[in-house]
Amino acid sequence: MVKLYDDERVDQLFAEDIKVIQSSSVFSYSIDSILLANFPRLPQKENQLIVDLCAGNGAVGLFASKKTKTPIVQIEIQERLADMARRSVELNNLEHQITVHTLDLKESLRVITHDSADMILVNPPYFKHEKESKKNPNPYFAIARHEISATLEDIVKMSSVLLKTNGRLAMVHRPDRLLEIFDVLRKYKIAPKRVQFIYPKKTGQSNTVLIEGIKNGSTEGLRILPPLVVHDENGEYTKEAMKIYYGN
Amino acid sequence: MVKLYDDERVDQLFAEDIKVIQSSSVFSYSIDSILLANFPRLPQKENQLIVDLCAGNGAVGLFASKKTKTPIVQIEIQERLADMARRSVELNNLEHQITVHTLDLKESLRVITHDSADMILVNPPYFKHEKESKKNPNPYFAIARHEISATLEDIVKMSSVLLKTNGRLAMVHRPDRLLEIFDVLRKYKIAPKRVQFIYPKKTGQSNTVLIEGIKNGSTEGLRILPPLVVHDENGEYTKEAMKIYYGN
Repeated sequence: MVKLYDDERVDQLFAEDIKVIQSSSVFSYSIDSILLANFPRLPQKENQLIVDLCAGNGAVGLFASKKTKTPIVQIEIQERLADMARRSVELNNLEHQITVHTLDLKESLRVITHDSADMILVNPPYFKHEKESKKNPNPYFAIARHEISATLEDIVKMSSVLLKTNGRLAMVHRPDRLLEIFDVLRKYKIAPKRVQFIYPKKTGQSNTVLIEGIKNGSTEGLRILPPLVVHDENGEYTKEAMKIYYGN
Repeated sequence: MVKLYDDERVDQLFAEDIKVIQSSSVFSYSIDSILLANFPRLPQKENQLIVDLCAGNGAVGLFASKKTKTPIVQIEIQERLADMARRSVELNNLEHQITVHTLDLKESLRVITHDSADMILVNPPYFKHEKESKKNPNPYFAIARHEISATLEDIVKMSSVLLKTNGRLAMVHRPDRLLEIFDVLRKYKIAPKRVQFIYPKKTGQSNTVLIEGIKNGSTEGLRILPPLVVHDENGEYTKEAMKIYYGN
């Protein structure tokens, strides 16, 4: 029996038959976690390695686990969230596949060997940490959303250290930071190969971008994948979004 | 009475009530010209200046002329195409607004003052000029499609010279060159602000990208505009594409 705290609930992602411990006062995953877990072609072998950085309550790794037998290592700096992730792993009987470390991702080499990861998944904090910027007074949300404990550069730098050559980084982020993302990826020799823009509705600007890059890959051959429009004119989920939420 | 050669025809763009002299043996505009002319908010004043580089048979400037009173200067290196453009200007009685120069765009300062353009429109050659690359044996098409007489860098460099501070460059290109486009824009101090991806169908990769940048603008605040999907599941034009082709 997995312990739940008073502010916690268990959400089920229907597409994947996965239960995730959530808390509205600490951390809940968003659609971005689902999109990220669905975006790359995951490694499949048991002797490969997937790393989930900025793992939060573990949602991305939990969703990904249903699509592969590859071991997944999750790194999360906030013990309260890492503890939620560990209990969700237990709740889904995934202890054989998923390991959760409470760790600053900049210290990842304490638990993961360099040049050993086949894939890194990361749903990073989206917002820059500027003194004048408005942050959520709740420190759990502030750290998850703002680059307080790790910047985009910290994350990409460590990803490059952990990845094998030809290993892949898959990231979800905001399109308004696209130029910076491309620059940082280049700095750490990760070549963007697949980019997908998510549009809340077909008449609206993109609010989310998925990016996959290859360590030491060539910078030729960027592909912009089909658009994913989340809501139709009536505010209902589109067929494509339903498929991701609820499966086929 | 405007002269037409044997291989020429006159096409009418219904949305704009503009006639364009076309030739299947020399040059015909594509949907990309229509998309480009529709993409930016054009300058509107008679004392401003729009420049159309790589003007081809003049389609982009001709379409744009219906949306503004601002004078338009077109630069085209191939005399045969520039001549078609001039006759289309005459055919539409636009001599007061559009001027066509047969000129290598790298020589643009011979007819346009530096720091004088409010907007540059350009539908450049999309493909790199590599010795091993397959090119159309027809030299008219080869020069229009391959970077034989001008590269992306030549075009952006000259655009930056011609534009006023806060003047805008609007370009149509291929998404697989997006990283290079962003790099060249930065090199010549044009900050990308609006990007729109065109998808032939909603389940397919983007094959065209529209980019607008501001000379000496800040590099913050890139926006990814709503997707434009050209064909529906039945191969018919979507409502959005119809609007661009045929008007409201």
